[in-house]
Amino acid sequence: MRRTLHILLTNDDGIYAPGIAALHKALRRVGAVSVVAPAVEQSAVGHSITLAHPLRVIEAERRGKFFGYGVSGAPADCVKLAVLELLKRSVDLIVSGINLGSNAGVNALYSGTVAAAVEGVMLGIPGIAVSMDFCQRPKFGPAAEIARRLVKAVVRRGLRPDMLLNVNIPALPLRRIKGVRVTPQSRRMPPEGFERRTDPMGRHYYWIKPWGRYDGEEDTDVCALRKGYVAITPLQYDLTSQSLLKELRGWEWGRK
Amino acid sequence: MRRTLHILLTNDDGIYAPGIAALHKALRRVGAVSVVAPAVEQSAVGHSITLAHPLRVIEAERRGKFFGYGVSGAPADCVKLAVLELLKRSVDLIVSGINLGSNAGVNALYSGTVAAAVEGVMLGIPGIAVSMDFCQRPKFGPAAEIARRLVKAVVRRGLRPDMLLNVNIPALPLRRIKGVRVTPQSRRMPPEGFERRTDPMGRHYYWIKPWGRYDGEEDTDVCALRKGYVAITPLQYDLTSQSLLKELRGWEWGRK
Repeated sequence: MRRTLHILLTNDDGIYAPGIAALHKALRRVGAVSVVAPAVEQSAVGHSITLAHPLRVIEAERRGKFFGYGVSGAPADCVKLAVLELLKRSVDLIVSGINLGSNAGVNALYSGTVAAAVEGVMLGIPGIAVSMDFCQRPKFGPAAEIARRLVKAVVRRGLRPDMLLNVNIPALPLRRIKGVRVTPQSRRMPPEGFERRTDPMGRHYYWIKPWGRYDGEEDTDVCALRKGYVAITPLQYDLTSQSLLKELRGWEWGRK
Repeated sequence: MRRTLHILLTNDDGIYAPGIAALHKALRRVGAVSVVAPAVEQSAVGHSITLAHPLRVIEAERRGKFFGYGVSGAPADCVKLAVLELLKRSVDLIVSGINLGSNAGVNALYSGTVAAAVEGVMLGIPGIAVSMDFCQRPKFGPAAEIARRLVKAVVRRGLRPDMLLNVNIPALPLRRIKGVRVTPQSRRMPPEGFERRTDPMGRHYYWIKPWGRYDGEEDTDVCALRKGYVAITPLQYDLTSQSLLKELRGWEWGRK
């Protein structure tokens, strides 16, 4: 008899965010879903983990029923704690999202949503991060349906411990999404700067601020998303630059 | 006339940590050094950035003299704010450290020290992250001297915007350090788990805890460091898995 697929669902917008609820509903059609997610919003926390403080766990409800565990930490903490301590059953796949806001391009590096999936693969469990382009009044139904299909496609091929996907979905109705593109990560930085303001006490503070439009290079995730495609970018957590590695081995490092 | 090299120095242990003071002293022999670092300790914050709150900046002193700017954010925030807003002069090189504790292997992913150097390269400025293996009563002098030599070696070859190095140094006197090894990042996870404790109110909490010894695969940074070598690992911020990319392009993604 085939075991039911056991999915760990997490996010970085917090356990009460609407994106995780939509994904939960869709993924329950694919397998058993355990939710372990941050108790409060953790956007742009990247791959941070909590060392200096202990973690607290609450049991979170939705509509009067147990929904999952809320953790007083970052998404990567949630994955570690779920896999190493909280969940009795072994996890087959980690799905993280749906994040409100694209994590395409270099945003993958800042993203707690992506870090949760990366942490999974570091622990030997395949991971899929799901994000939807930012919009006012988001509707997560179409993105959740697309995520469900992608999860099924990945499961159908057989789960592998190196399977790490960063999925970014346009904020559009299903019929207006053009299809799926498998693309590399854009390396371009979004244009940004800081706004200097003065508080009521006359002291300065700085707030990060995007400057205008963020375009990716041709045939990258940022570009595909902008054109109305679902962008799937396979990632790895080995950050070694193989080309630099080869070059630097020829250098002389000993000189004073 | 050759311009003086302008180095931005940051860290994740905070602007008053002894590691950054040792590095500051050593790097002043190589060029002009501006310090912009977290006002308080930010260990294991990874590549987090501060979006939901503004950043405050203080002018930090050492021995009665201006030392640098302390920022109420993560290391990556410090680099962004320094480069895009605070510093009048353009930055040639970012050096981050000296972190107390190795950032070899997968620790590079959790590390704020490494994230600062990565952020630099994302902004087009070469970056070097410097960490020293953990020990009780650390002495940063030898590691600072080694960092100075490495910075000189990199500058001698000509600074390039893709130059991103993760440097890990044994906590040993200079004469006991065996040499320099250029190595890939270890992919192995350190063995870890959680300790469940009970607080004075009778409630549970969880604290992450290393289990025993962390060994890296042969010819990796973790392994070289353990053997007494300085490990230099060139990194990149494009997380795309090229091998998976090729494979996934052959999959059929459209099925329901």
